[in-house]
Amino acid sequence: MTKPAMDIAEMEEFLNREFPQAFHPTSGLSIDVVEHGRAVVKLAYKDAYIRPGGTLSGPTMMMLADFALYLAVLSAIGPVALAVTINFNINFLRRPEQRDLIADASMLKLGKRLAVMQVNLYSEGSEDPVAHVTSTYSIPPQI
Amino acid sequence: MTKPAMDIAEMEEFLNREFPQAFHPTSGLSIDVVEHGRAVVKLAYKDAYIRPGGTLSGPTMMMLADFALYLAVLSAIGPVALAVTINFNINFLRRPEQRDLIADASMLKLGKRLAVMQVNLYSEGSEDPVAHVTSTYSIPPQI
Amino acid sequence: MTKPAMDIAEMEEFLNREFPQAFHPTSGLSIDVVEHGRAVVKLAYKDAYIRPGGTLSGPTMMMLADFALYLAVLSAIGPVALAVTINFNINFLRRPEQRDLIADASMLKLGKRLAVMQVNLYSEGSEDPVAHVTSTYSIPPQI
Amino acid sequence: MTKPAMDIAEMEEFLNREFPQAFHPTSGLSIDVVEHGRAVVKLAYKDAYIRPGGTLSGPTMMMLADFALYLAVLSAIGPVALAVTINFNINFLRRPEQRDLIADASMLKLGKRLAVMQVNLYSEGSEDPVAHVTSTYSIPPQI
Repeated sequence: MTKPAMDIAEMEEFLNREFPQAFHPTSGLSIDVVEHGRAVVKLAYKDAYIRPGGTLSGPTMMMLADFALYLAVLSAIGPVALAVTINFNINFLRRPEQRDLIADASMLKLGKRLAVMQVNLYSEGSEDPVAHVTSTYSIPPQI
Repeated sequence: MTKPAMDIAEMEEFLNREFPQAFHPTSGLSIDVVEHGRAVVKLAYKDAYIRPGGTLSGPTMMMLADFALYLAVLSAIGPVALAVTINFNINFLRRPEQRDLIADASMLKLGKRLAVMQVNLYSEGSEDPVAHVTSTYSIPPQI
Repeated sequence: MTKPAMDIAEMEEFLNREFPQAFHPTSGLSIDVVEHGRAVVKLAYKDAYIRPGGTLSGPTMMMLADFALYLAVLSAIGPVALAVTINFNINFLRRPEQRDLIADASMLKLGKRLAVMQVNLYSEGSEDPVAHVTSTYSIPPQI
Repeated sequence: MTKPAMDIAEMEEFLNREFPQAFHPTSGLSIDVVEHGRAVVKLAYKDAYIRPGGTLSGPTMMMLADFALYLAVLSAIGPVALAVTINFNINFLRRPEQRDLIADASMLKLGKRLAVMQVNLYSEGSEDPVAHVTSTYSIPPQI
């Protein structure tokens, strides 16, 4: 198995330095697993994410999926400047529970110019995904 | 032209009551235009949305598009309980500017069970969209 | 494991009767596996599908994925009149080989009103998918 | 207005030479309009495209949209070898009529490495689209 380009500690340090407004002690975000081309992240449950009807909001799920995708890219190619999302497609499947939300992102294809990934989102403790995402990143040419 | 099911003032009152955690005086969100099946909304520029490289984050754009979609549904069918997003697909086209972000959502098809919409996102003052979204909502049967 | 609503022989008979223009002895289509909520189908290789550069055309892959999705719906709910595709999203991952093409469709979520599925497409004998599809069907209310 | 990289006659000659199995006198395909970054094409109605219930099949609509997208790319950058589809997302909106099908493809963004387009599909004589497509092409580096 190929080693990831960055491990969890290196990612945390990178995120604290580069994205302090998104990744900070009270963001509720944590990194559970990193492998080459895969990242599993978690969002701690907070009442603030809840919409009427008692469900996590769509944008909260999208934000967590986006975070997982970015770490899956980091795990495969390291902190490459300006890898950017070009497409993000989410299907909402089930109402999430009022508990922590998990996002498991993995590569469908890692090319030189493009990375195509999928993400399964789960409520902690459940095996049925609450949402499924596919997303494509553009990887800039390396000099 | 069909009258919208709710006007801007009615939407603001509804959002203040039902979504106080998302729509509040410091959220930066405002509603510019509401027609039957269409809503144009704005997010005031804030440094907190910015990522390294000086661009608005993807989740910020997705959140604003989601907000515009929800209001376009309200404008067409009113505050129907539990209309839910089933699919959301975004193509990122250009880097947004460091200025207010506009989302213009409109119906492609309004059926009894499904609403299919598109959203164009713009940096204020520019005519070239920074992102394009298509999204499908499921509309619950009315009793 | 839940039994499929129709087995392979029942599907073949149904398709011969209802879709003779699409499913016939020289169509190259065959059904390999049917489980509840899953169908694996195959398209026999033909030069006519090939584009310059020696690859299977995109529409050929989309047609096979669409066929697999339809059978996965049949396997779960039987020959329900007028279940219709509302969304189909395909990511092309790798160039297919000049050999038979396999499509493996399975349910992400089977609800009363909506079925959300994914399809992995493979060149026969290869484990890396050439394309990945997500698709949503609308299921009409049963009387 | 920028002149298209190829006009209709040049496209027809190119397609006859390079894609004789897809574009031939009995294919039913014709090219109506070509501008820089835009192509409008038509599929003549044939009973063979019809499914039970009297509607054009999904793969027929996808095939025509794919054809329009390819010509929109040709209109913008000419017959560049190996521009390839990386994503294709279709929302089916209404049942098409039993008449000719029109696809109108246009650029949302033409970059150096990526082209993002949309397609509206119509039954001839109707203004309400039967389907809406967004699609991304990868453009290979020019030598």
